[in-house]
Amino acid sequence: MSINIPRGTKDILPGEVEKWQIIEAKAKEISARFNYKEIRTPMFEHTDLFQRGVGDSTDIVQKEMYTFTDRGDRSLTLRPEGTAPVTRSYVENKLFGLAGQPIKLYYIAPMFRYERPQAGRYRQFVQFGIEAMGSADPAIDAEVISLAMSLYKELGLKKLRLVLNTLGDAESRKTHKEALIAHFEPSIGEFCSDCQNRLTKNPLRILDCKKDRDHELMKSAPSIIDHLNEESKVYFEQVKTALTEMNIDYALDPTLVRGLDYYNHTAFEIMSDADGFGAITTLSGGGRYNGLVEDLGGPPTPSIGFAMSLERLLMALEAEGITLDTEDVLDCYVVALGDDAKRKSVSLLNELRQAGIKSDKDYLDKKMKAQFKAADRLKAKFVAILGDEELAKGIINVKNMQSGEQTEVRLEELSSFIKQGK
Amino acid sequence: MSINIPRGTKDILPGEVEKWQIIEAKAKEISARFNYKEIRTPMFEHTDLFQRGVGDSTDIVQKEMYTFTDRGDRSLTLRPEGTAPVTRSYVENKLFGLAGQPIKLYYIAPMFRYERPQAGRYRQFVQFGIEAMGSADPAIDAEVISLAMSLYKELGLKKLRLVLNTLGDAESRKTHKEALIAHFEPSIGEFCSDCQNRLTKNPLRILDCKKDRDHELMKSAPSIIDHLNEESKVYFEQVKTALTEMNIDYALDPTLVRGLDYYNHTAFEIMSDADGFGAITTLSGGGRYNGLVEDLGGPPTPSIGFAMSLERLLMALEAEGITLDTEDVLDCYVVALGDDAKRKSVSLLNELRQAGIKSDKDYLDKKMKAQFKAADRLKAKFVAILGDEELAKGIINVKNMQSGEQTEVRLEELSSFIKQGK
Repeated sequence: MSINIPRGTKDILPGEVEKWQIIEAKAKEISARFNYKEIRTPMFEHTDLFQRGVGDSTDIVQKEMYTFTDRGDRSLTLRPEGTAPVTRSYVENKLFGLAGQPIKLYYIAPMFRYERPQAGRYRQFVQFGIEAMGSADPAIDAEVISLAMSLYKELGLKKLRLVLNTLGDAESRKTHKEALIAHFEPSIGEFCSDCQNRLTKNPLRILDCKKDRDHELMKSAPSIIDHLNEESKVYFEQVKTALTEMNIDYALDPTLVRGLDYYNHTAFEIMSDADGFGAITTLSGGGRYNGLVEDLGGPPTPSIGFAMSLERLLMALEAEGITLDTEDVLDCYVVALGDDAKRKSVSLLNELRQAGIKSDKDYLDKKMKAQFKAADRLKAKFVAILGDEELAKGIINVKNMQSGEQTEVRLEELSSFIKQGK
Repeated sequence: MSINIPRGTKDILPGEVEKWQIIEAKAKEISARFNYKEIRTPMFEHTDLFQRGVGDSTDIVQKEMYTFTDRGDRSLTLRPEGTAPVTRSYVENKLFGLAGQPIKLYYIAPMFRYERPQAGRYRQFVQFGIEAMGSADPAIDAEVISLAMSLYKELGLKKLRLVLNTLGDAESRKTHKEALIAHFEPSIGEFCSDCQNRLTKNPLRILDCKKDRDHELMKSAPSIIDHLNEESKVYFEQVKTALTEMNIDYALDPTLVRGLDYYNHTAFEIMSDADGFGAITTLSGGGRYNGLVEDLGGPPTPSIGFAMSLERLLMALEAEGITLDTEDVLDCYVVALGDDAKRKSVSLLNELRQAGIKSDKDYLDKKMKAQFKAADRLKAKFVAILGDEELAKGIINVKNMQSGEQTEVRLEELSSFIKQGK
């Protein structure tokens, strides 16, 4: 009896994995170009970290985490997102004390959320994310957005929409929160029980509610924009100016919010407007989280980042009809006929590979015709044919598969011949 | 209060992560050269898979697995090794039905074992492994070994020892097992309770016991070598011949065993003989497992593979005093002085990066001297200095940090100037 893959997860097989290799290489190359360095944190963390760093009241923490107890009775959780672990690492490793601030980091890493599987949503998915930690310069907000946009654009996406908002600073958020409570409180009985709980705890999240989204009080809810203090207004203007300097278009959306207290100022999402992309059009989201490092035990550290799902990026590429160049070729396929030739083909293949030549041979004792077929399927540029007769003469026949030209080459010169031709 | 990383795991930070990038890139390049393709399986599997595929009687399954129940009441386990998941995927995705057999796969992936942390041993560690599935040709056993050796050698390791053995085919193993039982049974009372349990279940694993390793019956135990049938002998000779054809030295060690029933024929380990490498000298291990695909519900599929810990590879490099070239430079650092210049530097930096130039600027409102210091620390090849005066004239001063030469460049030509020089 066979065993299946766990529900909501998938294998990435040859034929598909090459696309992943391309987008990951591109994400790494752009990160380097923007001077972001890779960080790798463990697949799991103490559960505490997410309760505090993502927030006890979020769906992620309440419903979606893979939490378990290890053999030492610790409560561990497979990471549902990357910002809390990176921040934990920043604090624990005292990265705030290093020369060269801000610290600019990126990760490409699996994340885990127990959600209902649907198109483009898996229980294990891969996020590419960056975190710029230690600067309160509005220009770095624009840099972070620009990095995400650059990846999408350089991969060929055209139907992109950047949505921008500000959440203001702590003071602005406080007055906004009070205004929201005053707005919803008289009619809160008409809202779902989740929203009723959110009213005093976190009224901003009412605006995010999927059940109550059509309630008339939603549209008329007080906007953060009307509660920004002067400092927050100036900050937001500077971010917008920097984006304009970079020729990055954006649409303002005052309903784009982040429920957690440590978020402030810039919030953004990048959406796909491609036809038939599906109901969830968000490709990535990010924002400033000036309070998080301090919440997790570090010094006050203004920070901003984004995260994007690579599964959704691949879907967006498909929706826009963009194909990545995943063609794979072999430099040389060695065809051997006869027992002695077959034995010799082992060392020949070994020499080719030592010389850096991508090469292969048959391992199923196939007839000549089938060996040629295998070479074809692997798109071999050269086929080197060795029979016992050639072996006795110390030569090998090399066929250039594009031109059809055949050349007799001395055995010891095979590698250099292929190297010149490939 | 701050939160720590889970015990036995580690962060890989900038400064260290570059070494990982180098060895992983090398592993991928060599895999491609040998015509192996990447496969990615989920971080967890149904617990069943490892009970059947790794074996209920192993330490891994009995003591070391991270097993938990998900919110849908499934028993899942973070993968402790890579062969069972790859085999599960091979069966589930019917890779045996594809053209182009054998299927040659590689993975670079985190594994999880709850062990006592010690030098070079973590609870989450990374394995590079390959699996060649669908060929019973002794030459592919040699290919698999050669791929592992090539990675070590091309990274510069010299103090390597390849240890080789055969476990024979199923028939040979059976007669050997009977001989082992006859050998140990009369004195089994002198052995540890684990060994007493192993006697009838899996007497081969007695030879692996760390507690009883000095018992006199260990040395005199019957060797598989004396119980090989003719077919198994021939197979082993062919593997050795192929290794010799490839100039790969090996030492025979009849005590190198694999406890699980689906292992047969070739078994090998690669050890480091570097001084001060530590007590555990094994860098990688592998072998043939002709029975596993069938055990997991697929058709009979002769297969062979290896797995190596990248943590141990890094330790071996260190023990041999090999340093990887992790130097990282920046193409251009933009120094801006004055408010207008600072604003302009945002779009200049953006243009540089769009042109593929690795570049950065200050985000902490630093004075000129400190900006130059940052450029130095980042090993910038060029520093582009923009003041409000230069900006008014539409120019920028570019300093070549190696030659000290300064050039006045028109703003719109900055990218092409740096591109020529970098």
